[in-house]
Amino acid sequence: MLTISQKAQKLPASAIRKLVPYADEAKKRGIKVYHLNIGQPDIASPKLVFDALKNLDSKMDHISYANSAGIESYRKGLAKYYNNIGVDVNFKNIIITSSGSEAVPMAISITCDPGDEIIVMEPFYTNYNSFAVLNQVKLVPVPTTIETGFKVPPIEEVEKYITPKTKAILICNPGNPTGTLYPKESLLKLGQIVKKHNIYLFSDEVYREFCYTDTPHFSALQIPEAEKNVIVLDSVSKRYSLCGVRIGCIVSRNDEIMKCALKFAQSRLCSPVLGQIVAEAALDTPKEYFAKVKEEYIRRRDLMIELLNKIPGVFTPKPMGAFYTVAQLPVDNSEKFVKWILQEFNYNGETVMMAPAEGFYATPGKGINQVRIAYVLKTEDIKAAVKCLEEALKVYPGRTI
Amino acid sequence: MLTISQKAQKLPASAIRKLVPYADEAKKRGIKVYHLNIGQPDIASPKLVFDALKNLDSKMDHISYANSAGIESYRKGLAKYYNNIGVDVNFKNIIITSSGSEAVPMAISITCDPGDEIIVMEPFYTNYNSFAVLNQVKLVPVPTTIETGFKVPPIEEVEKYITPKTKAILICNPGNPTGTLYPKESLLKLGQIVKKHNIYLFSDEVYREFCYTDTPHFSALQIPEAEKNVIVLDSVSKRYSLCGVRIGCIVSRNDEIMKCALKFAQSRLCSPVLGQIVAEAALDTPKEYFAKVKEEYIRRRDLMIELLNKIPGVFTPKPMGAFYTVAQLPVDNSEKFVKWILQEFNYNGETVMMAPAEGFYATPGKGINQVRIAYVLKTEDIKAAVKCLEEALKVYPGRTI
Repeated sequence: MLTISQKAQKLPASAIRKLVPYADEAKKRGIKVYHLNIGQPDIASPKLVFDALKNLDSKMDHISYANSAGIESYRKGLAKYYNNIGVDVNFKNIIITSSGSEAVPMAISITCDPGDEIIVMEPFYTNYNSFAVLNQVKLVPVPTTIETGFKVPPIEEVEKYITPKTKAILICNPGNPTGTLYPKESLLKLGQIVKKHNIYLFSDEVYREFCYTDTPHFSALQIPEAEKNVIVLDSVSKRYSLCGVRIGCIVSRNDEIMKCALKFAQSRLCSPVLGQIVAEAALDTPKEYFAKVKEEYIRRRDLMIELLNKIPGVFTPKPMGAFYTVAQLPVDNSEKFVKWILQEFNYNGETVMMAPAEGFYATPGKGINQVRIAYVLKTEDIKAAVKCLEEALKVYPGRTI
Repeated sequence: MLTISQKAQKLPASAIRKLVPYADEAKKRGIKVYHLNIGQPDIASPKLVFDALKNLDSKMDHISYANSAGIESYRKGLAKYYNNIGVDVNFKNIIITSSGSEAVPMAISITCDPGDEIIVMEPFYTNYNSFAVLNQVKLVPVPTTIETGFKVPPIEEVEKYITPKTKAILICNPGNPTGTLYPKESLLKLGQIVKKHNIYLFSDEVYREFCYTDTPHFSALQIPEAEKNVIVLDSVSKRYSLCGVRIGCIVSRNDEIMKCALKFAQSRLCSPVLGQIVAEAALDTPKEYFAKVKEEYIRRRDLMIELLNKIPGVFTPKPMGAFYTVAQLPVDNSEKFVKWILQEFNYNGETVMMAPAEGFYATPGKGINQVRIAYVLKTEDIKAAVKCLEEALKVYPGRTI
């Protein structure tokens, strides 16, 4: 018998991707599907990103490898971007990755051996589960609850989860799937405890631009005196609606980490060059672009939260960042419900796809009646999508209350 | 003390990348450096790849994620490409990867657990060492020698290296760094033994278009009756001089493998979309393009081999595929020599960079007086580069004969 590795056997199918075939089948039957399952904004990218691709053949006649660490001018431009948001780094503290989906597992792989533990606030971005399996690392969840709006737990509580096997605390700020923002106070305390226990703080900040409070985003790189402990994972996917270019980075002022990251980067030669060209151009995006985008997301969020909470039996807190919310539904099992809504249901020829939330938890059984909803569609589409959900819940055979 | 993982500690710096800073320093001193260290062709890409990028904003206003398995129309186009070279696959047998550098470690990770073994013909592509370390897999080298032109060993000999821990035989055909072509006979026998021992045959065929014999390339996917055992790793990097787009694929008719590959692909969401657009456009490259490119490489190879073998104390066999050759130099240590030639030497303001061959071996001490040379430059540059090498060898303090 040909064998399959234990890693591959244990690897979960992605909670945000595995039901896509059901949506595709619905579309084949002529049903319109509103995609609330994935953080794929429909917001236009800054125009200048497309301009960067137009005259490429006046500059090159083939597309060469870049430096493994990234195109130097792009790394320098990115350093300036960080400087402008109050983060003190230079280009040597930055290695360009093939998106955040390379940056996060790279940080894990550099710091963790099989059997090691990483503390995460639960629920968390579902693919952290995959990255943990691929590195044979155990995710240790600190629970947060929908009733408190997935509030960041007191850091003294988080500290209790540290064992001799703990290598890092992994946070996502603003949080996917909850929209939770970490208060500056919590980050400062996190800095103290990672320093005290000699572990790392991985901070996934890909939604940095999407904070809906008046306080500016506070990056883990701004925590004083935890320079060697902090590794920030970043991406241009959401910032400029450039999910497809697959460009992110790993940022740290720990030289040892950066040396290792470079070896990892060399082993796959380089990150996508066209993506780097586009991402470098995007650095010149005017501030007004972000102001408008933020306004639009606040509008979408407010509408989404209001409409969801009006549906009998549905509850969702008000997220303060990113563009997701976790909603509790009056259903027996949200994966079963999402399959059903795609396979068996439509409202005037339309239906809606959401991500079952169970895959965003490490604790078995948790999130079973929750879904992650991305408010990435225009307000008209949000209204239509939530209407589908409301009508579906009226007739779903597995309704609980 | 903050810890670094054992994997990260063991990960070798890439033999083809780690000396780049020495070349960069030479350039800063005003020295012109000929890069024979990396398979970065200077051949123009087919023009249509740039055309594909020009009117992108008439088709999209942002760059979305693609399907995790790849853009379906591209997968279908690729299936046709394989059909045209006599390989019977459909698009479901193909998953688009972020280059061969994702495809190879993905195949390893899907099939091997820590401690498992993979048989490779030595010397082999240096980054296989990195992929093995990252998966905690042991590469078991079957030696081939420069004296025989790195001829493929009798497959009965290869079979002797199989142990209960062996999960796969990994070949590169045509071979990097040797240029070795696998005769059809050898492949058929490999098919028999992987079937007999229930192991996989990984075939890295990224240089498929670069065969300099009259016989067409025979793909591992054409081996009859080993359908479930064969996994082909591929890339568009060399085929169209598109190294920077980072697009490759994993091809197999083993459904279990493809299911796992999809889960791996979902965990990183998708491959670079701009690269996929370019690679899909490149499928329409006319046959004449490849005929011309092949002619050019034959010219370069013939010149390179002739000039190298004229240098006293230097020997290199004549490669029949890819665009590399391994050369034996009259030096004590080729890494020391390459550092020296970049740091201490120049000939009329010019010098040359090569890849020390030791990193292409798993057996300690082997390849210590060899370098890998890529004949990817125009004939004029090849002449100038080899002249630098010749002059350098005359004065290098560590010369052995």
